[in-house]
Amino acid sequence: MSEREITKLTLYGDSISGNCQKPRWTADYLDIDHDWVEVDILNGGTQTEEFLALNPVGQVPLARWPDGRALPQSNAIMLYLAEGSDLIPEDDFQRAQMNSWLFWEQYSHEPYIAVRRFKKHYLNLPDDQIDPDLMAKGRRALGVMEMQLTWTDWLVGSQLSCADIALVAYTRIAHEGGFDISEFPNVERWVSRVEGALSIGHANPKEGITL
Amino acid sequence: MSEREITKLTLYGDSISGNCQKPRWTADYLDIDHDWVEVDILNGGTQTEEFLALNPVGQVPLARWPDGRALPQSNAIMLYLAEGSDLIPEDDFQRAQMNSWLFWEQYSHEPYIAVRRFKKHYLNLPDDQIDPDLMAKGRRALGVMEMQLTWTDWLVGSQLSCADIALVAYTRIAHEGGFDISEFPNVERWVSRVEGALSIGHANPKEGITL
Repeated sequence: MSEREITKLTLYGDSISGNCQKPRWTADYLDIDHDWVEVDILNGGTQTEEFLALNPVGQVPLARWPDGRALPQSNAIMLYLAEGSDLIPEDDFQRAQMNSWLFWEQYSHEPYIAVRRFKKHYLNLPDDQIDPDLMAKGRRALGVMEMQLTWTDWLVGSQLSCADIALVAYTRIAHEGGFDISEFPNVERWVSRVEGALSIGHANPKEGITL
Repeated sequence: MSEREITKLTLYGDSISGNCQKPRWTADYLDIDHDWVEVDILNGGTQTEEFLALNPVGQVPLARWPDGRALPQSNAIMLYLAEGSDLIPEDDFQRAQMNSWLFWEQYSHEPYIAVRRFKKHYLNLPDDQIDPDLMAKGRRALGVMEMQLTWTDWLVGSQLSCADIALVAYTRIAHEGGFDISEFPNVERWVSRVEGALSIGHANPKEGITL
């Protein structure tokens, strides 16, 4: 991590983290000029004295501006960057639905799908050493998305929004956590749709690509 | 739970749930006319055919309007009800900070403080049957709040916002989860400040009052 003075929006994050990709993809999609500073979570990058001076909570992603402002929390950064753009629905109630998906993602999706992926793919734990709840609740989360995406192309309204960006982050790499996304065909098609809209590569389960 | 047609905003929730209190307090504070429908989580109230028809995900709180719209997720409901009010900062960046606290609450506070309270206070589990991580991470969350509240009276800006309402919900009853709030004196003072602003009773640890 660099100690240099920053001259533009700087996003601190670890590329293996779906949470960290959300603000990065948002900035790229909206052509917001920024620097990316890689912070290696697995090697303690968020717990160094230097990083804790920027974010005492010791979490990435973190957004930082040249005037000293700093903002943690993936979904909050994404919403702030997207303010006034087409990633946030103009309609009040659609905006509320988008927020609802964002909170649901942090409470009922990420803690199962991202956590199981971390244990399986990065800690290399065998399945029998992973809490079976993670698979059950992760599959339930994918089922909730499938139910929505049976009826609509996007999670909210008729176009890409922050809700899709937040949810695609770990859904597209759920196979690394042992989830079989092909059981949820509408989710699978939506993943490709969102990846296309964001111009990010396809995380192909068959080829084992990570990011 | 009533099957009747609704004629105004209706909030479905369980009074023992801090998450359910958030939209209720918000509606009360803003004088938004509404009905409250009690849904008993512990007795399966969120899993009945009738409730699942309203919210297939089977979670409270749920807000519902006479025109058929329904919205889940405590923080999303609260933000929607509070739109345009003084509970949401006018300044863009303060609004981003408020959102940041809301996401942090759902990811780094509620899963430890509310969950430990549920296991201890409602399932009556003895301490040695509760994952010690819940106490450690709950105390860390209270420490993060203490750090902020050492410097400011409110979590964001210079007045009550949705961030305070979201965070006070389980912080004020953290003692029911075995947390000693007096270790965090600025948090303790802030709890009284927010309870006062919302005109809700004080959840006094010494008297063992619940809600």
